Amino acid sequence: MKQNMNYTMLCDFYELTMANGYFQTGMADQICYFDIFFRNVPDGGGFAIAAGLEQIIDYINSLQFDEEDIAYLRKKGCFSEEFLDYLRAFRFTGDIWAVPEGTPIFPREPILTVRAPAIQAQFIETYLLLCLNHQSLIATKSNRIVRAAQGRPVSEFGSRRAQGADGALLGARASYIAGCAGTACTLADELYGSPAGGTMAHSWVQMFPDEYTAFKTYCQLYPHSATLLVDTYNVLKSGVPNAIRAFQEVLLPQGITECAIRLDSGDLTYLSRKAREMLDAAGLTSCKIVASNSLDEYIIRDLLLQGAKIDSFGVGERLITSKSEPVFGGVYKLAAIEDKDGTILPKIKISANPDKITNPHFKKVYRLFDNESGKAFADLITLWNETVDESAPLELFDPDATWKRSTVTGFTAKELLVPIFQGGRQVYASPSITEMRAYCAGQIDMLWDEVKRFENPHAYYVDLSQKLWDIKQDLLKRKGGR
Amino acid sequence: MKQNMNYTMLCDFYELTMANGYFQTGMADQICYFDIFFRNVPDGGGFAIAAGLEQIIDYINSLQFDEEDIAYLRKKGCFSEEFLDYLRAFRFTGDIWAVPEGTPIFPREPILTVRAPAIQAQFIETYLLLCLNHQSLIATKSNRIVRAAQGRPVSEFGSRRAQGADGALLGARASYIAGCAGTACTLADELYGSPAGGTMAHSWVQMFPDEYTAFKTYCQLYPHSATLLVDTYNVLKSGVPNAIRAFQEVLLPQGITECAIRLDSGDLTYLSRKAREMLDAAGLTSCKIVASNSLDEYIIRDLLLQGAKIDSFGVGERLITSKSEPVFGGVYKLAAIEDKDGTILPKIKISANPDKITNPHFKKVYRLFDNESGKAFADLITLWNETVDESAPLELFDPDATWKRSTVTGFTAKELLVPIFQGGRQVYASPSITEMRAYCAGQIDMLWDEVKRFENPHAYYVDLSQKLWDIKQDLLKRKGGR
Repeated sequence: MKQNMNYTMLCDFYELTMANGYFQTGMADQICYFDIFFRNVPDGGGFAIAAGLEQIIDYINSLQFDEEDIAYLRKKGCFSEEFLDYLRAFRFTGDIWAVPEGTPIFPREPILTVRAPAIQAQFIETYLLLCLNHQSLIATKSNRIVRAAQGRPVSEFGSRRAQGADGALLGARASYIAGCAGTACTLADELYGSPAGGTMAHSWVQMFPDEYTAFKTYCQLYPHSATLLVDTYNVLKSGVPNAIRAFQEVLLPQGITECAIRLDSGDLTYLSRKAREMLDAAGLTSCKIVASNSLDEYIIRDLLLQGAKIDSFGVGERLITSKSEPVFGGVYKLAAIEDKDGTILPKIKISANPDKITNPHFKKVYRLFDNESGKAFADLITLWNETVDESAPLELFDPDATWKRSTVTGFTAKELLVPIFQGGRQVYASPSITEMRAYCAGQIDMLWDEVKRFENPHAYYVDLSQKLWDIKQDLLKRKGGR
Repeated sequence: MKQNMNYTMLCDFYELTMANGYFQTGMADQICYFDIFFRNVPDGGGFAIAAGLEQIIDYINSLQFDEEDIAYLRKKGCFSEEFLDYLRAFRFTGDIWAVPEGTPIFPREPILTVRAPAIQAQFIETYLLLCLNHQSLIATKSNRIVRAAQGRPVSEFGSRRAQGADGALLGARASYIAGCAGTACTLADELYGSPAGGTMAHSWVQMFPDEYTAFKTYCQLYPHSATLLVDTYNVLKSGVPNAIRAFQEVLLPQGITECAIRLDSGDLTYLSRKAREMLDAAGLTSCKIVASNSLDEYIIRDLLLQGAKIDSFGVGERLITSKSEPVFGGVYKLAAIEDKDGTILPKIKISANPDKITNPHFKKVYRLFDNESGKAFADLITLWNETVDESAPLELFDPDATWKRSTVTGFTAKELLVPIFQGGRQVYASPSITEMRAYCAGQIDMLWDEVKRFENPHAYYVDLSQKLWDIKQDLLKRKGGR
């Protein structure tokens, strides 16, 4: 079993130099608001899926500098003893709101908001981003692959190609939340509950005098879960015939008809169709065909379009690293500070690139569902103290092209961010992973198919309230200029 | 500080079903040889760099199933009690040879070889691959970026976009071995000794009433390590002038001329040249210019070609995930077994794809250096009991086109793989990380420039001895066929 870990020191060094700076200049307790949001959906998709919150909760609860850390920091020679003393008692006393894991999320909307004294709010940046960026990346990619498989189970097989142990473990976790049926990784099951499975490698077959003996032995050992890997020598001339013989000689006499073969190389469409014919001709119509070998959503879609006879998929490196787009670009930006009497002062980050300009202020996000279809049609970002009146017509507009306007009625507005910490105290309990997985599937069902296309999906509306838009424009006018 | 971890259970589930199978069928103690090798250099480069061995050593030394693990496995319902009992006392008793970290490596040659009883040799597959694949990937990518910078320091800045905590920490470690000057990640410094550094985020600037006050405050706090981030509002109209003013008012009166600015957006060539002019005109000729923002080896090469005035680089997501090619395809393949009297029986994995056919048998790898130039010109894979006679002419041939032959003289042959474990006992001590880094740089100096090109490099020769080639051909004839 893996021990619990303390990642307090997993921070960019500048979080500490800035913290020391706030400490030295009397700004330590300045209340700040930071948002996490992202700008682009990986792979050009229509939505992403949030994941990683449970690990953020663990991190916040275990924040603590030990004496080794203090000694290390002292040796760096740039921190005052008063600051090092302050770190000894450091803990998080602020508030955090976040979208639950498994929620579909869209560019430019806050998915996590922190309100805390400056040092605390700044310090947690690196780890919060790392957590959400990694798991949201893998959840988003996994869900694309799961959707491509059109109901056929997809298992995560990528540990050996993952970027580090947490890449494997938390990647398996995120992939399960996003709809995978399980994982090959034993520890991911033990720690996080994504069901682990798997049967044999090529080396099993090579260890025996011949392929048939390897298969027969395996069926004798595991009659109820025999998936035989048939491509060590030659799939159609050797692997499938030997598998059929082993199934017929070991399983059928016991009345067992549930079994499977796995194809791990070659042309999967051709081989699966031929193998299906051979299995059916031998009466093994209940024998499933599993396919693996550098799969992703595009290859799975094309295999099924060409009539491949595949019942389930094992997907490795292209899932566990999100190979086609291995970075989720979540950022952590200052949105506001409070003055001494508690007034919230909005802050904005300007950029020559309009896409990089932030949405200022302490905010809420509403997801709007059409009452008739049940489908989500827009997210609306508002100020923290605005409410949406479901009983009145609501005017929405494109924040970049404000002449594009529409008025909606008959909708339900649901707040996306929920309180996670209040005054440093955890006020949210993560659901079980199976609950997260069911929630994720349910939320994706409430998106229109147009948003789910792999290429050129409909750009889901993420709008600003008029009040928020006005404040943003005002700040831009005051700070902007080419 | 992060605790030490036990990753015994981080294995593909099939390692356990196969282990139980070997246990049940009396094959547990069958001695096996497995090789790790890879088939393609990421990014089309001419060589990769091995990394991750120290973590493999830790893993082997800490292999142990605890009672929680046993209880978890019992619940899976497919393992016998005898096998679970066996796991309680499980440890590694075999031999491991590997190339030292920082060694340039080439496709199809063993970079790690295991000789152990079947269950042990099979069981460690997943974690060994994960370790070597991840860190070799990041070391290889980092070295490309470091070479593109032509001597200018490159710092690793990617924690927030890494694929999990180990992605950040061990990625920072691998990047330092491969030539990076340091990291932004504090814990990577504390744990692994890659020097951590960093100064400020945009939020520091935004927290103050104006940019100048933010800069002045920072220079007062850190007069000897002030790197001011100048792109929060407008680089040339605001950032650089305010930085110059802060340097002149705070640092120069103290006689400090070492300082820096950081550019994190916009056109880095244009902005760095203009900023250089402004700094020089203000007499700040010792002020360095640091650049960051989605950099990689191609962008750095182009920036320098265009005359950008950049003194050092911070490289984030494209390094820490090896974004352009985020998978290192190392594989773990059975190469031989021993019969009861200790005779080594070679094993081969056939494939319709000739690239996927393995090199059988227990092997050694010699790197051949030209005595005159000191440069490496070929690697030669031999049987375990062959030696290379440096005093005699040596005939080499292309293993895929055997008519391509050459005879070499005046060379030195160096064995690449060194003993790491013997009979389960660690016999190798990892050098310090700074020693690894120096070793890596020295080994790369011994490669011809032709091998170091980013695109279309010379394909370094990896040849087989005549004896090994003959054995491989013989196995292919006996097992092959379309």
